[in-house]
Amino acid sequence: MRSTVYAVRGELMQRGEELRKAGREIIFTNIGNPQALGQKPLSFNRQVQALVNAPFLLENERIIAEFPEDAIARAREMLTKLPGGVGAYQDSRGSPAIRQEIADFLQHRDGYPSNAEHIFMTDGASPAVRMCLQALIRDSRDAILVPIPQYPLYSASIQLLGGSLLPYHLKEESGWSMNVEDLRNQVRLGRDNGMAVRALVFINPGNPTGQCLSYQNLKDLIEFAAEEKLVLMADEVYQTNIYQDELPFVSAKRVLRDIGGSVADELELISFHTISKGVIGECGLRGGYMELVNIHPEVIGEMYKIASINLSPNTMGQVSISLMVNEPKPGDTSYEKHVEEKGTTLASLIRRAHIMTDGFNKLEGVTCNFTEGAMYSFPRIRLPPKAIQAAKEAGKPADTFYCLALLEATGISTVPGSGFGQEEGTLHLRTTILPPENSIKEVIARLTKFHEEFMDKYR
Amino acid sequence: MRSTVYAVRGELMQRGEELRKAGREIIFTNIGNPQALGQKPLSFNRQVQALVNAPFLLENERIIAEFPEDAIARAREMLTKLPGGVGAYQDSRGSPAIRQEIADFLQHRDGYPSNAEHIFMTDGASPAVRMCLQALIRDSRDAILVPIPQYPLYSASIQLLGGSLLPYHLKEESGWSMNVEDLRNQVRLGRDNGMAVRALVFINPGNPTGQCLSYQNLKDLIEFAAEEKLVLMADEVYQTNIYQDELPFVSAKRVLRDIGGSVADELELISFHTISKGVIGECGLRGGYMELVNIHPEVIGEMYKIASINLSPNTMGQVSISLMVNEPKPGDTSYEKHVEEKGTTLASLIRRAHIMTDGFNKLEGVTCNFTEGAMYSFPRIRLPPKAIQAAKEAGKPADTFYCLALLEATGISTVPGSGFGQEEGTLHLRTTILPPENSIKEVIARLTKFHEEFMDKYR
Repeated sequence: MRSTVYAVRGELMQRGEELRKAGREIIFTNIGNPQALGQKPLSFNRQVQALVNAPFLLENERIIAEFPEDAIARAREMLTKLPGGVGAYQDSRGSPAIRQEIADFLQHRDGYPSNAEHIFMTDGASPAVRMCLQALIRDSRDAILVPIPQYPLYSASIQLLGGSLLPYHLKEESGWSMNVEDLRNQVRLGRDNGMAVRALVFINPGNPTGQCLSYQNLKDLIEFAAEEKLVLMADEVYQTNIYQDELPFVSAKRVLRDIGGSVADELELISFHTISKGVIGECGLRGGYMELVNIHPEVIGEMYKIASINLSPNTMGQVSISLMVNEPKPGDTSYEKHVEEKGTTLASLIRRAHIMTDGFNKLEGVTCNFTEGAMYSFPRIRLPPKAIQAAKEAGKPADTFYCLALLEATGISTVPGSGFGQEEGTLHLRTTILPPENSIKEVIARLTKFHEEFMDKYR
Repeated sequence: MRSTVYAVRGELMQRGEELRKAGREIIFTNIGNPQALGQKPLSFNRQVQALVNAPFLLENERIIAEFPEDAIARAREMLTKLPGGVGAYQDSRGSPAIRQEIADFLQHRDGYPSNAEHIFMTDGASPAVRMCLQALIRDSRDAILVPIPQYPLYSASIQLLGGSLLPYHLKEESGWSMNVEDLRNQVRLGRDNGMAVRALVFINPGNPTGQCLSYQNLKDLIEFAAEEKLVLMADEVYQTNIYQDELPFVSAKRVLRDIGGSVADELELISFHTISKGVIGECGLRGGYMELVNIHPEVIGEMYKIASINLSPNTMGQVSISLMVNEPKPGDTSYEKHVEEKGTTLASLIRRAHIMTDGFNKLEGVTCNFTEGAMYSFPRIRLPPKAIQAAKEAGKPADTFYCLALLEATGISTVPGSGFGQEEGTLHLRTTILPPENSIKEVIARLTKFHEEFMDKYR
């Protein structure tokens, strides 16, 4: 079988699991799993979820007296959107009524129409990405442009599907910006090597890099993709994880439609979203969707067939997507509480983004761009030659060596930068900003103490 | 992109959808989706599901007063098995504690040990099958033995993965039995054609054919696979849909261990199970698992990595699997109601299996083996030459022509036999036995009237 590498759940996580089983307290900051670190689910969503699981509760007056009326109404409405209830297969693209809610949400977000027939729900965004890559990759000559550093879903899936990854580098010194000239060079290089360059992936806000793309950046990217006739894969799963005001989230779809003309009508764009991130953070329920823009109807038909083989995305993920794109409105019983819960979580994430990046920037030899969005900090770490030598002797990449030492010393489980790709000669690590506020300062304190000792040891 | 064919959600279903949208009442018997046709979910399961979705309900005394105490206790216990709750990613193979419950269930079912480390939970059984085929198929020379007729998950996935399907025929005249001599010939034929025959799929109880394999049949099959060094893929998703006493379900794992010796220690067996079938019928929640027996640890490691790319199977599917393999016990508050609900559904399925196959056998030119298990009847239909000619003129396979005419005339949506494969020169259709009891006689009446008119028209 084809082998693959998937660092986010790699050596560090396995060692962390071993230590945890042996009784050590481990802080898993290796994966963006907010509820595992104490982020509270949204009350309204969970009320509706409980009721759609057990519709007989809706017939019990003593029970419904304990639920807000909008949650009850929403649960009844949800059940009409899922014929047969949550235990029945739905359309292989997900419930048409919920896909219409997504289309309405996208139209409201972008100010441009969205077609529910071009939306597919999936078990989280990852299977949607894989489905697209499967449609794009025919053999090893088919190449996909992927940012470096990248989220390893892309490298691992491309590897498994037998395609080629064509890297383009984000510039750390200018806030992980992307450069169209670099993209153009890489495409030329790929084509010179006989590759058919099929698609361009970008992640906005960035994972693991945490940057937010500007409107102009997106415009350049879209025009470049149109020029080169590439399918644009827009990983926008962190669209509501924004921690500053200068660079608000702008969707590729909106910029595409703003550009207008033949680009708006012809560029093939696929954008991905999920319930796993944002302040909803429902990773475990596995809900995601993709919107297909300007994709040929025959290709959509083939993707529908591929989706059909898996029968139906899970219904609770669909319910959760519905609740994400169609929230309580002003005047609804749950509105104020819902807004407050979301605001509390977002404000806390903003504070933690600052605490984490400030913490890293105070360490000797470490620099870290501010986490403008998403859920991660990705500091660059400069290690003394003796540490590099010790890593070599241990048979490990230097960043893995550092992260393992950090794990053993502090219980903090991170992911080495090599798992995401990094410029030759540089070292990084990725950590989430998710440790809860009452412990994140302790995390930074432990990290600082470890780093000082590590540097002293190998200086 | 690679094209594929998936008949269960093919032309018939699309036409059915069109008619439904135009206001026609359509009876979807094309897919095994019991709750969509009114099968009631099990109350205990749904009570637990509601509580794990909204753990704050457990703190509300007025609410828990309305729940049986074992459902409350089970929900509390379930939450300890899912760190972070249902909103958090779990281990990529699913919760270790729930996998242990599965292992205990398998050990109790088979009388032989089962190892939770060799169990993977997935979003329904289909992704587990695909994951295995992905591990087995390297290129088009890799061949998988698949029964004909078969469930098209297999043909479609093998096609998508670029492998080869090596068919072996079930014998309709002897109750869809499988014949080891035929298998041996097919393997020889495949090898003569330069194929690497990698695995043997069987479906017990059969889909679409509804037969149950005898102990001796399974023993022959296993010994044959061992002799030929094939991986055995045992699709046992209908293991509790058994409608007669002569051929109870026997797992391949049990027979393998009974055989003992080198076969028991060496034959690579992968068996699949799901929450979608049986009397639980929770299709929409997408829960499934596979048990890997005698699979090399390195291969298991690679499969773990593939599972990791998709992060985690959905938690509500995991909850439902836990509830399927670990049911209320004698003495528990919900025990009697649970047993009664299951018994009611099973008894009804048995009656419907008889009504359906009896109904088909009364039709001119139609014969139908009794549905011993699973959820389908697969009658053979002999059409007059004028009907075959009319189909040819319409540019359709004759079985599709018949099924479309049935759909237009009666609203009954079936799947043509050609979607599953059938012996050359024969015609079949597949229907589920799932229409509810208060309407199944009406279904048979409509079918009978249609068939008579169809035969009269083309005789």
